[in-house]
Amino acid sequence: MAEIEAISRLVNELGKLPGVGRKSAQRLAYHIIGLPEDDVRALAAAIFNGKKQVHFCPVCGNFTDVDPCAICADPRRRRDIICVVRDARDVMALERMQAFDGLYHVLNGVISPMNGVGPDDIRIAPLMERLSDGTVKEVVLATNPDVEGEATAAYIARLIKPMGIKITRIAHGVPVGGDLEYTDEVTLLRAFQGRREL
Amino acid sequence: MAEIEAISRLVNELGKLPGVGRKSAQRLAYHIIGLPEDDVRALAAAIFNGKKQVHFCPVCGNFTDVDPCAICADPRRRRDIICVVRDARDVMALERMQAFDGLYHVLNGVISPMNGVGPDDIRIAPLMERLSDGTVKEVVLATNPDVEGEATAAYIARLIKPMGIKITRIAHGVPVGGDLEYTDEVTLLRAFQGRREL
Repeated sequence: MAEIEAISRLVNELGKLPGVGRKSAQRLAYHIIGLPEDDVRALAAAIFNGKKQVHFCPVCGNFTDVDPCAICADPRRRRDIICVVRDARDVMALERMQAFDGLYHVLNGVISPMNGVGPDDIRIAPLMERLSDGTVKEVVLATNPDVEGEATAAYIARLIKPMGIKITRIAHGVPVGGDLEYTDEVTLLRAFQGRREL
Repeated sequence: MAEIEAISRLVNELGKLPGVGRKSAQRLAYHIIGLPEDDVRALAAAIFNGKKQVHFCPVCGNFTDVDPCAICADPRRRRDIICVVRDARDVMALERMQAFDGLYHVLNGVISPMNGVGPDDIRIAPLMERLSDGTVKEVVLATNPDVEGEATAAYIARLIKPMGIKITRIAHGVPVGGDLEYTDEVTLLRAFQGRREL
């Protein structure tokens, strides 16, 4: 059968998404082709604009559509505590627990020698710069409680220690080996409250 | 946290896709935002163009980007046998077995009183029209072997019977209650070869 190129291309593009195999991609493609044109336009536009309008906050590294991001710009948030996370998804997860009113710092990755990611490949230097003016009194290290997250937390803790800033680590309320992103709000809250000084 | 509208909209649009829940939609959205801009443009374009360029073949009802579709237009295919299927995905599945060289007729649905789908809501009339000139000697009813697929096949068989055309039904090599789309090529081939006259 002569393949229909527009469909093949769509299946191919959808198949590149994480967790979408060939069969799912095909199913999604046929679903999309069967949708009303307005719905398809909305989907395509949301994808394109999502990418185009969203970028990293120049201060904290979180996703944002304004500079600086809404969290960094919020005058009601404490400036003396910074919570360090791996990526923007973790900010979203922590915000859902509605109990932290400080600022964030997104590393955009964790140190992972296995994957060739060193300390200079993630946003550790910008973090050190943020800490240099003495405003911040506590840094909460909220990287995931897995090997790389722990190593990254330990590395950052070693760097900050000489500055006399309090360094805490979220408690192991988050299941070991687990993922912040998929942790419910209550567990996250407990992990946050039980944070201990490193 | 002030929601970022472009992200919310993207999560919302992705969440409308079949099999994509809120968590998956969020994961996909962040993945998309993290992609290089060219990749995102390609994805959005594939979605939009997939919908725009693909339509139903005016003859067989299969998806196509040319009129009539590549299968209907193929001079090497037999004109005396038509295989009737529920939707375009089933054509794709049957073509994969590479053993059928006749034409197709896509019903674009099956009779389903429960869902308010009657014989007039699917492409049965166009099928009868295609059969009226006497070219077609056999109609293979290849709707799914589930309740609605069987009922639709029986309905169509009753309509065609008086015309003296041979009517066959694919064999129950396809698991009962199963779905053509997810059947492997070998099983499909067996089902096709074992088709019996109704």
